[in-house]
Amino acid sequence: MRQLIDSPHNKHVRQFRALATKKGRAKYGLVQVEGVRLVQEALAAGVDIAWVAICPYRLKGFRARQVLDEIQQRNVPVLSMTQRAFTAMSDTIGPQGIAAACRLTQRRLDDLASVLAPPKAAAAGRRLVLALYELRDPGNMGTMIRTANAFGCAAVVAIGECVDFFNPKVVRASAGGVFHLPLVSSTWDEFRAWAAQNEITVLAAVTSGGVPCTQLALPAGGGALVMGSEAHGLPDVVLTAADITVTIPMAGAAESLNAAVAAGIILYEINKGSDRVK
Amino acid sequence: MRQLIDSPHNKHVRQFRALATKKGRAKYGLVQVEGVRLVQEALAAGVDIAWVAICPYRLKGFRARQVLDEIQQRNVPVLSMTQRAFTAMSDTIGPQGIAAACRLTQRRLDDLASVLAPPKAAAAGRRLVLALYELRDPGNMGTMIRTANAFGCAAVVAIGECVDFFNPKVVRASAGGVFHLPLVSSTWDEFRAWAAQNEITVLAAVTSGGVPCTQLALPAGGGALVMGSEAHGLPDVVLTAADITVTIPMAGAAESLNAAVAAGIILYEINKGSDRVK
Repeated sequence: MRQLIDSPHNKHVRQFRALATKKGRAKYGLVQVEGVRLVQEALAAGVDIAWVAICPYRLKGFRARQVLDEIQQRNVPVLSMTQRAFTAMSDTIGPQGIAAACRLTQRRLDDLASVLAPPKAAAAGRRLVLALYELRDPGNMGTMIRTANAFGCAAVVAIGECVDFFNPKVVRASAGGVFHLPLVSSTWDEFRAWAAQNEITVLAAVTSGGVPCTQLALPAGGGALVMGSEAHGLPDVVLTAADITVTIPMAGAAESLNAAVAAGIILYEINKGSDRVK
Repeated sequence: MRQLIDSPHNKHVRQFRALATKKGRAKYGLVQVEGVRLVQEALAAGVDIAWVAICPYRLKGFRARQVLDEIQQRNVPVLSMTQRAFTAMSDTIGPQGIAAACRLTQRRLDDLASVLAPPKAAAAGRRLVLALYELRDPGNMGTMIRTANAFGCAAVVAIGECVDFFNPKVVRASAGGVFHLPLVSSTWDEFRAWAAQNEITVLAAVTSGGVPCTQLALPAGGGALVMGSEAHGLPDVVLTAADITVTIPMAGAAESLNAAVAAGIILYEINKGSDRVK
């Protein structure tokens, strides 16, 4: 057995640590992926994995061995580390003893043409896009990407100043969603123009006064659900340019939902009407 | 103006810090509540506030002044602190400069008789209870309490080893839900017996194979939705004793939802059928 990497100053340890920041991710073109399940999701989605680090002392269980086998079959470099080096890779690193540096990149709005089904096709669900407006909370962002993936969205679009898609907390909360869905950053104006060009109806989520989502069906040409942040909601520029505003009926008018829960309920309702529901 | 509390060793600073742990909360019978909005929610819900700490340097804005006015009207003791003392109160304390030590207590299953509407009453939604089985994640727990509050649940029950209702992260994620809803801890056996005695149908959420929640209506006698943790789901003892298992139809069979999002969708569906929807 080769000697384990022990130094917290090792090149790969430092590189992985740098990937905690947007700057570091841009520099190396890599993203932090931690834990057995998440690495397994990356493999299943065919993500390009630059290298994997394992801490043999921590890595245990059948699933972990399966994941390692698959990594070795794909000729991905595997670095073995002591606990000292492994825990130095990240502030938030889990106890599972596996982490991967993955090549993931954002896409552009123009790239989405290929992932959108033609309008009025049977698989109408694929003409559904989730757009997040100035969403800063990484947990909510990741959870929404996960939900978008579960309900057959074609892509997730971040509008304006959002938390980065590849922030480690977003990746973790997405439960692999970031590996499966095209992720796009855009300005509001670009996004609105793109939706119009593609005959996609823009639905803006509002806490009151919109069309009840109980009455919602996916528009024929497709739909883009725009969610704001919990703190600020959506600004007038979005509300006036949206085709429809949508509200979730609630028991108490004064109550509110977590933004990710609200997105889940509306996507569920839209998805329910489509042919993709099993 | 009286002198500001500056010492990180001040009695109240130490007491508040102790409330971060379950042991400390049990010792003092108090719960940490931080931030302008959350203190406002506590006031609105008529929570018994033992004392409030403010950091005048940080506390700004119209809403903060409103909250302070109301606190003073209620004769709640207000302690003014320097930034040094205020930030020593908590590891996670927000930048808003207000925190309250609140008297909140758990309720017992027997206490719920008074909050449940009679069976077959018009306000059938109030015979809806959310039960969380061995849920460890404070963010998910808090978000689910918030959702239960928004969809008119009568109470939230924690079954087995759950994260404490009054963990500061739960309180924060609940967005005030913990102030409004009766919160009960119970064993599974006690809970199952209580539901049977009260003619409440037990609905267990499962990732596949259950009744699609699209077909779900609140049972006549009321319903208790039982959610498991994301990691482990619900054990056989719950699944076999439940009256109905419930599943959310999804686009991709292999995908999963965040536990709080899943709870939100099912509660939304159950609530939709009730008379309480506006």
